[in-house]
Amino acid sequence: MTTTPATPRGLAGVVVTDTALGDVRGREGFYHYRQYSAIELARTRGFEDVWYLMLHGELPDRVAAAGFAARTESLRALPAEVREALPAVARASRVSGPLAGLRTALSLLGASAGLSPVYDVGAERRRSDALALCAAVPTVLTALHRLGEGLEPVEPREDLPFAANYLYMLTGAEPEPARVRAIEQYLVSTVDHGFNASTFTARVVASTGADLAACLVAAVGALSGPLHGGAPSRALDTLDAIGSPDRIDGWIRDQVLAGRRIMGFGHPVYRTEDPRSRMLKSVAQAFGGPLVDFAVEVERRVEAILAELKPGRELHTNVEFYAGVVMELCGLPRSMFTPTFCAARMIGWSANILEQAKDTKIIRPAARYVGAPPPQPVPAP
Amino acid sequence: MTTTPATPRGLAGVVVTDTALGDVRGREGFYHYRQYSAIELARTRGFEDVWYLMLHGELPDRVAAAGFAARTESLRALPAEVREALPAVARASRVSGPLAGLRTALSLLGASAGLSPVYDVGAERRRSDALALCAAVPTVLTALHRLGEGLEPVEPREDLPFAANYLYMLTGAEPEPARVRAIEQYLVSTVDHGFNASTFTARVVASTGADLAACLVAAVGALSGPLHGGAPSRALDTLDAIGSPDRIDGWIRDQVLAGRRIMGFGHPVYRTEDPRSRMLKSVAQAFGGPLVDFAVEVERRVEAILAELKPGRELHTNVEFYAGVVMELCGLPRSMFTPTFCAARMIGWSANILEQAKDTKIIRPAARYVGAPPPQPVPAP
Repeated sequence: MTTTPATPRGLAGVVVTDTALGDVRGREGFYHYRQYSAIELARTRGFEDVWYLMLHGELPDRVAAAGFAARTESLRALPAEVREALPAVARASRVSGPLAGLRTALSLLGASAGLSPVYDVGAERRRSDALALCAAVPTVLTALHRLGEGLEPVEPREDLPFAANYLYMLTGAEPEPARVRAIEQYLVSTVDHGFNASTFTARVVASTGADLAACLVAAVGALSGPLHGGAPSRALDTLDAIGSPDRIDGWIRDQVLAGRRIMGFGHPVYRTEDPRSRMLKSVAQAFGGPLVDFAVEVERRVEAILAELKPGRELHTNVEFYAGVVMELCGLPRSMFTPTFCAARMIGWSANILEQAKDTKIIRPAARYVGAPPPQPVPAP
Repeated sequence: MTTTPATPRGLAGVVVTDTALGDVRGREGFYHYRQYSAIELARTRGFEDVWYLMLHGELPDRVAAAGFAARTESLRALPAEVREALPAVARASRVSGPLAGLRTALSLLGASAGLSPVYDVGAERRRSDALALCAAVPTVLTALHRLGEGLEPVEPREDLPFAANYLYMLTGAEPEPARVRAIEQYLVSTVDHGFNASTFTARVVASTGADLAACLVAAVGALSGPLHGGAPSRALDTLDAIGSPDRIDGWIRDQVLAGRRIMGFGHPVYRTEDPRSRMLKSVAQAFGGPLVDFAVEVERRVEAILAELKPGRELHTNVEFYAGVVMELCGLPRSMFTPTFCAARMIGWSANILEQAKDTKIIRPAARYVGAPPPQPVPAP
C-alpha cells in the first residue's frame, strides 16, 4: 500500500474524476450544466428539458422534448410492492424524517424494478433505469407525506409536467401556474451543483458496478448528513427566530457576537452572491407580500451588520435562504423542502452515475494503519 | 478548485484516513483486527468477542463478554413497521436479489429506530445505534429468505449466540454444533478486511454526519457491485461447471487458454495464500466428504496447470473458494452466501463509521470539468 501522507484532509481539492456535466465557478458566481448557465436554463426552460440535457448531453428539439416528457409521465405510478409497503415506511418516517423514508422507498422501488449492474448494460438501458427511478420519486415523496398526515396518496397524472404534477400530488388540487413555474425554476436550479459529497457517494457506489438504485439510495443517505448542507427549511427557521422587523438588528448582533452561524448565509465555494439566491430572490419578489419584504430586510441588515462588525468578510445569502421563501410561498410544507431538493438532485446524481459507469475502475483509496504494531497474541477467553 | 492531475485513477493508494481498526499485509499473507490476527481470533474466539473488540477497542473479559452478548440478544426482534413491510420487500427481492432486499429492510429498520446524526451524539449512543442495527440484520436476512420460499419467518431466540441463532432462524431447527462453529469461524474472519470500496463508502457517508443506517445502507449498495467482489457462491458455481474429477484438467485448460478468470482464485492484495482460504480449507476438511475432496483436487490442479501454462504467476484460492464450500457444508442456500458475508461485514463497517465520526471533516474530493467551454447561450425552446 503506497502511503502519500500529503493527501489533503477529506480529499479536499483532489481531482478524482473528469466530468462533462458541469462546473461551479465560485469566484465568478457562476455555475453551468453542460455549458449552459443553470440560471439561464431556469429562466427559459422547463424541468424536463434540463433533465433531457443532463441525460442525453444536449437540449432536446421539440419532437424529442415531447417524446421524453411523455415517457417520464408514463413512469410515475408505483409498483404494487412499493404501494403495499408505503404505510409502514411512512410510519417509520415519522420517527426519522422524510429522507429516511425516501431512502427506504427508493431502495424498494429499485429492488422491484430488477435493475442491472451499471457495467453489465449499455448506455440506453442505464438511462432508462435512471428515468424510471427519477420519474417515480415525486410519487413516493408526496405519498409518504400524505400518509404521514393521515391522508390518502393522490395518484399521479400523466397530463401534467413534472413540477405541476408534483404540486398536484401533494395537495390533490390543480396548482396555480405561478406556483408551478416558481417551483420549476427552483427545481431546474437544483439539478446539479458541482462535486458535492452526495454526488461523490453516488459515483463511488457506481464505480463498483452496482445498479442505479444502490447508487441513488447511497446519495440520499449522504445528503441526510448535517455537514452536507442543503436544508432550505433552516433559513425559514432563522426568519421565525427573528420574528419581526424590529428585532432584526438585536438578533443578528447577538448571533454574530456569540460566534454563531446565521443559517441561510455563507457558502463554501461562492465568493460573490450565490447565483441561485439572486434568481430565487427575484422569483420571490414577483410574488411579493410580507414574508418576502421581511426576508429582503433581514438580508439587507445581515449584510450591513456584518460589514460593520466583521469588516472585509463578505457574507451573502446562499441558496437555502430564498429557496425556503419560494417553497413557503408555493405552499410546500417545511418538511418537504429537502425532499423537493432531492427530487431535483436525483437528476444530477443519475447523470453522474451514468458518466461514472463509462469508467470501469473502482474508486478505492487506502487507509493507513496507525494502531499498535501487530501481531499481539490473542489472550484466552 | 485545485487540480492535481497526478492523482492515481480510482484513488488507488491515496491515503484518505488513518485507522486503528486493522490492516491487510498482502505480502505476508496476514491481516489483523486491532493488533490481533483475524485468523487466530477465528480459531479461538466467538463472534460476539470480536464484535466487542471492533466496537470497544479491546477484547472483553468474561463479565463484559456476557453483558455484551445479552445486550445483542435482546436486540434481535424486528419492529412492527419492518415486519409489516417484509413481505413486499421479499417479493421485490425475488426480482433483484437478497442484497437489494437487505438494503431496503435495513433502511427501514434504521428509519423506524430514530437514529441520530453521527456527529450529534456521543460515542456511547453511536455504538448503541450500531449494535441495534447489526443485531437485527440476521433476523431481516433469514425472514426475507423464508418469505421468498413461501415460509413463515422464524422468531429469533435470545438464548443462542449470534451464529447459532442465525442458522436456527434460517431453518427453524436447532443447528448442529459443528456447523455453528464453522459458520462462526467464517463470520469472524469476514468482519473486516482492509479499506475496500464498501468500507470507504460507509466512511464517506459518515463524514457528512448522516446516521448509522444511511452509512450501512450505502455500504450494502457498494457491496452489491460486481467489481467489489465478495460473492462466495461463484466459487461453487466453478465446481458445478467442472462437474466431476475427470473433467478438471480439460475445463481449467480451456479457461486459461481462453484468458478467462477462474472464480475463487486470485486476489488483488495477497501475493501468498489468502490466510482466510487456508483457515476455511481446514474447517472444510474437518467435515470431509466428496465435495471437500473435489474442491481440494480442483485447487491442486488449478495451481499445477497454472504453474505449467503461466510459469512465474502464482495464483491461489481466495476467500470465496473455501467459504463457498464451508457454507454449502453448513446447509446454507447459495442465495444466502453473500448475505451471510454481509451480516459479518456489518460489524466492520460499523466500526469504520464510528471511527470516521470522530473526524468532523467531510470527505469531498473534486472533479475537473472537461466539456466544451461555457457559457453557451441557451437556445429558445
